[in-house]
Parts: sequence; C-alpha cells; structure tokens
Amino acid sequence: MYLTSHADYTLRLLIHLAVQRNETATIQEIAAHYGISRNHLMKVANQAVQEGYVKAVRGRMGGLRLAMSPREINIGRVLRSVEDWTMVECFDKSGNSCRITRGCGLRGILKEALDAYFSVLDSYSLADVVQRKTLLVQLLGLRPA
Amino acid sequence: MYLTSHADYTLRLLIHLAVQRNETATIQEIAAHYGISRNHLMKVANQAVQEGYVKAVRGRMGGLRLAMSPREINIGRVLRSVEDWTMVECFDKSGNSCRITRGCGLRGILKEALDAYFSVLDSYSLADVVQRKTLLVQLLGLRPA
Repeated sequence: MYLTSHADYTLRLLIHLAVQRNETATIQEIAAHYGISRNHLMKVANQAVQEGYVKAVRGRMGGLRLAMSPREINIGRVLRSVEDWTMVECFDKSGNSCRITRGCGLRGILKEALDAYFSVLDSYSLADVVQRKTLLVQLLGLRPA
Repeated sequence: MYLTSHADYTLRLLIHLAVQRNETATIQEIAAHYGISRNHLMKVANQAVQEGYVKAVRGRMGGLRLAMSPREINIGRVLRSVEDWTMVECFDKSGNSCRITRGCGLRGILKEALDAYFSVLDSYSLADVVQRKTLLVQLLGLRPA
C-alpha cells in the first residue's frame, strides 16, 4: 500500500516550501532539489495552490511559497485531499459490485482502522515534519538563512 | 489507497470458506459466487495455502477449506502477509533515493499512523467478519447448513 506519487510529491513540495519559509522557490528548483519530474510536480503544485496551501507569486522574484504557516497545515487534511481513500470497492456505494456487502463485517473494520490511521495524522502539522530544519536546509542544498 | 486485489480476494476467499465451514469449496465455485477471475483466485488460494490459512483437500469431494478456526485467523496478520506496506520509499532502506530522509519527520509520523491502523486490524478475527453468517450464506447463494 504505497501512497500515490501525487501525495508523496505534495508532501515534498510542502516540506521544501516550509524549509525555505521566507523565500519563493520555482517548480524547476524544487524538482531539481529532489531529482523528481518537473511536469509531475507542476500538476501537484497546481492542486496545492487550489487547496490553499501554496501561493504563486508573480514577477521577477516570483515562484511558490506557503500560503499559511507550517503549523496551520495539517498532515491528515493534506493526505485526505490529495489521495483517494477507497480501500475496497464497498467504501464507494456507486461503484460497488461485491455481492456480500450487506452481510460482510470487513467494511466496518477497515473504516475503523482507517479512522485510527487518520487520527494519528490529524495530530501532526507540517511544522512537526520539518522540525529538523537546519539539517533539511543542508540536505536540500539550500542556502542557510 | 486501495487494497490490492490480491489482498481483497484473499479476504473474500477466507470469508467464503468461513461461511461454509464444514464443506470444501472449489476455486471455480468461489470465483463464480463472487463473479471474479478464476485464474487470479487460484494464485490467491495458493498463497493462502502456503500461509497456512487454507488447506487443499484431495479426492472426489475435494476442494479448499479453512486450515484453522475463523477465530484463529487474525485480520491484521492476514493483511500484513499478503500486501506490501511500504507507504513511501523511505520505509524501505534498500530502495530509497529520497535525499531528505535523514532530516524528514514524515516517516515516523506515517509509521505511527500505520501502527494505529494495524492495532485495530489486529483486534479482529475472521469470525468477526462473518458474524452475520446466515445472511452471508444467502448472499453467496450457498445451501443453508
């Protein structure tokens, strides 16, 4: 059970922007720092802007920056918004063809497990993820503030 | 984040065998009852036999049956054994190319969330999943015992 690369790259984008808090960064820079696809990151960034986590700044010094403080960006909320959490087809009433749904106890158990998963994620913010900021600045090859 | 169809079909197989506890069932019957691929179910059944959940009975009345009681088959253990729980590449030291791993707090947070997920699954057995046995017998089109 992998996170999709969309979710993975969204988190990497937010981490990068949280680490270089007061400067903008371009998609190209961020993609290069991580060694990931620029085109893929572009789509990820567009959604992050739509979700309100990231702001696009125009002009010569333009680029992306966080639209709110890392403490306000909740990890559970981010992962809910960028990934489909339909674990089995009966989670989704419209697309469900499993004939035992009405009698099967699995859906309730998987939902309870997923709730426990998110209750952990909901207790963390982006600020918790980037606590080791000095090391992250180094690892991303950024200029120290 | 879907369960793989391998995990999904393993659970369906175990549910079917738990419901018709004292009889054997063939792959063909089980696949037909669920309307799923016989070939795919064959691979799933082979692994379930290897893992010790299912027993293949030879002979004229042969087929598959559970190798232990539904109460002894733990849902957390089943899902751990049939699915890869590498949520992000840094869960797997050998295949990890993410350059921020040493400074990033995400791995610890995702692991804590996954532990919470499994602590729920570990508290349920196959017997809990098939509690509504009479209804499941009907839904699977089986003969009442």
